[in-house]
Amino acid sequence: MPVTQDEAIRLGHGSGGVMMQHLLRDVVFPHIANQWTSQGHDSATLAIGNSKVVFTTDSFVVSPLFFPGGDIGELAVYGTVNDLAMSGARPLYLSCSLILEEGLSLSVLERVMQSMARAAAVTGVQLVTGDTKVVERGKGDGLFINTSGIGLIEHSLEIAPQRIDSGDSIILSGDVGRHGMAIMASREGLEFEMPLASDCAPLQSPVLELLAAGVEVHCLRDLTRGGLATALVELAESSGRELAVQEAAVPVTESVQGACELLGLDPFYVANEGRFVAFVPREQAALALAALAKNPLTRGSAVIGNVTEGTHAQVILQNSLGSERLLDRLPGEMLPRIC
Amino acid sequence: MPVTQDEAIRLGHGSGGVMMQHLLRDVVFPHIANQWTSQGHDSATLAIGNSKVVFTTDSFVVSPLFFPGGDIGELAVYGTVNDLAMSGARPLYLSCSLILEEGLSLSVLERVMQSMARAAAVTGVQLVTGDTKVVERGKGDGLFINTSGIGLIEHSLEIAPQRIDSGDSIILSGDVGRHGMAIMASREGLEFEMPLASDCAPLQSPVLELLAAGVEVHCLRDLTRGGLATALVELAESSGRELAVQEAAVPVTESVQGACELLGLDPFYVANEGRFVAFVPREQAALALAALAKNPLTRGSAVIGNVTEGTHAQVILQNSLGSERLLDRLPGEMLPRIC
Repeated sequence: MPVTQDEAIRLGHGSGGVMMQHLLRDVVFPHIANQWTSQGHDSATLAIGNSKVVFTTDSFVVSPLFFPGGDIGELAVYGTVNDLAMSGARPLYLSCSLILEEGLSLSVLERVMQSMARAAAVTGVQLVTGDTKVVERGKGDGLFINTSGIGLIEHSLEIAPQRIDSGDSIILSGDVGRHGMAIMASREGLEFEMPLASDCAPLQSPVLELLAAGVEVHCLRDLTRGGLATALVELAESSGRELAVQEAAVPVTESVQGACELLGLDPFYVANEGRFVAFVPREQAALALAALAKNPLTRGSAVIGNVTEGTHAQVILQNSLGSERLLDRLPGEMLPRIC
Repeated sequence: MPVTQDEAIRLGHGSGGVMMQHLLRDVVFPHIANQWTSQGHDSATLAIGNSKVVFTTDSFVVSPLFFPGGDIGELAVYGTVNDLAMSGARPLYLSCSLILEEGLSLSVLERVMQSMARAAAVTGVQLVTGDTKVVERGKGDGLFINTSGIGLIEHSLEIAPQRIDSGDSIILSGDVGRHGMAIMASREGLEFEMPLASDCAPLQSPVLELLAAGVEVHCLRDLTRGGLATALVELAESSGRELAVQEAAVPVTESVQGACELLGLDPFYVANEGRFVAFVPREQAALALAALAKNPLTRGSAVIGNVTEGTHAQVILQNSLGSERLLDRLPGEMLPRIC
């Protein structure tokens, strides 16, 4: 359903799902169509001199600012680092732009800055430029952070949705749904028997290790808004390929599964901030898994499916009983402001 | 007065003046001290391969979104293009990150995107990557835009506050205070005899023309929050130099002067979005003025002062009667959310 101009923005337009897709397709992209925005990638690869420079941006509006397993500062650094890593780039430089609401406690800001600094140190990126704006009370929500990032591609591979090929194995780097459920539990004051903590983590090390091991990676995508399901559908559509995924191969922790059941949510659609899928040639899947198993962040990696010979751009989910269904993008909103 | 942690953010922390300086000094920079953030520049110059790449970021929270002479979309493109130009870089690529408030009309968003696209075309930059977030009604203010930018330095000059030298002429590219007063008039519903329109404009052409003319530019700075006075004080402090400025040499239009008098404001502190100061060797001032006079955007350029032999980092304002006073940064807030 196309977006019409007399509509207004709804929360679902920020979901990462179908509503957002239509908003971008109908209102944003028509005005900025070019070779980069048409790629359906989270970053742009730019030829500068003899270098392949990757450029990306993300604004972070997560609520609450501090949550089990992380905070907005860490998220703002890792989120942008991860977008760079998903092009196979080494993240180098980040900008940091703050939109502060009048009344925000300076000790909160201080904690967030400390967190950003720690996260930058962990990932080896430098925060090199910034900006600070203040809006009146009631015109913001404490603190929003934009980070944009620059990384460098140091290999000759092109890692992009268009490179996904039939026969590719689809590797998932670990269990799904933890970030979104941790935010949800924290926001709603829910307490579960098993504590939920975000999986928020920097992904450049496992990606660079994958490349160093000689894996000819075709495509990488981190799982954020819309979760695993939406990421896979986006990649099927960007590549024009059919993906087949085994439901039972996708790890979900008991605590996430339990919380999702309680709240009526599907963990396949719940956001992560430290997980990705990798599309690699089938004959290199074992090599890739071996490389990923060495890094604590991706120790739980598994092959969850493959790219078929099918000619429809779709994702088929196969359950353990052999029945199949098509995965959709997240239609509207499920968990607003999880990043 | 140092910022203490039990304080809260006030509007003045976003002013570009003293309060913001202290916030950055005490809460932000201690955590991200490095060779780039210590330079007091609005962008970072990065060595990537054999290229000198300039990287900058700005979030735009201007209110209202549309104002006489421009809108938030144009401002978001020109503002970041101008930060790149102030390092003498050719602006190439911009990111665009939107924070939308639930309830924002899609036709408003469409107009802003059209405006960004036009501004990008005017300046020759490509919008290559983006992000969209939505916040609940009452947690934002319609639309905030972050643009980050990448530019390329194609000359061998270093253009930075540290290059400001005694004897340099200070050139101002036109009249001051129009942007801030246009926003103010629009926001308050004020009508003046002579209409006020923002000077919002892209500055990369005059800067590149200045360089092409062979002017060995030492430093450039666009006048935004805090106006001419704050920009000069910042540059005096970053360079450790004393600047002398002739009050009568600074052009102020009658309409800006009139509106400022009515509202009790000093045009030296009112923001521009299409003006800059250039520090050039005195013997090249005429060459610089000749180059700037050819561009309609900088036709009103004039030498407004010079860097003295003085050893105090300060700005001396000399009036037409020969009396002198020291200029300060804008202390707190004057016009919130002008960019």
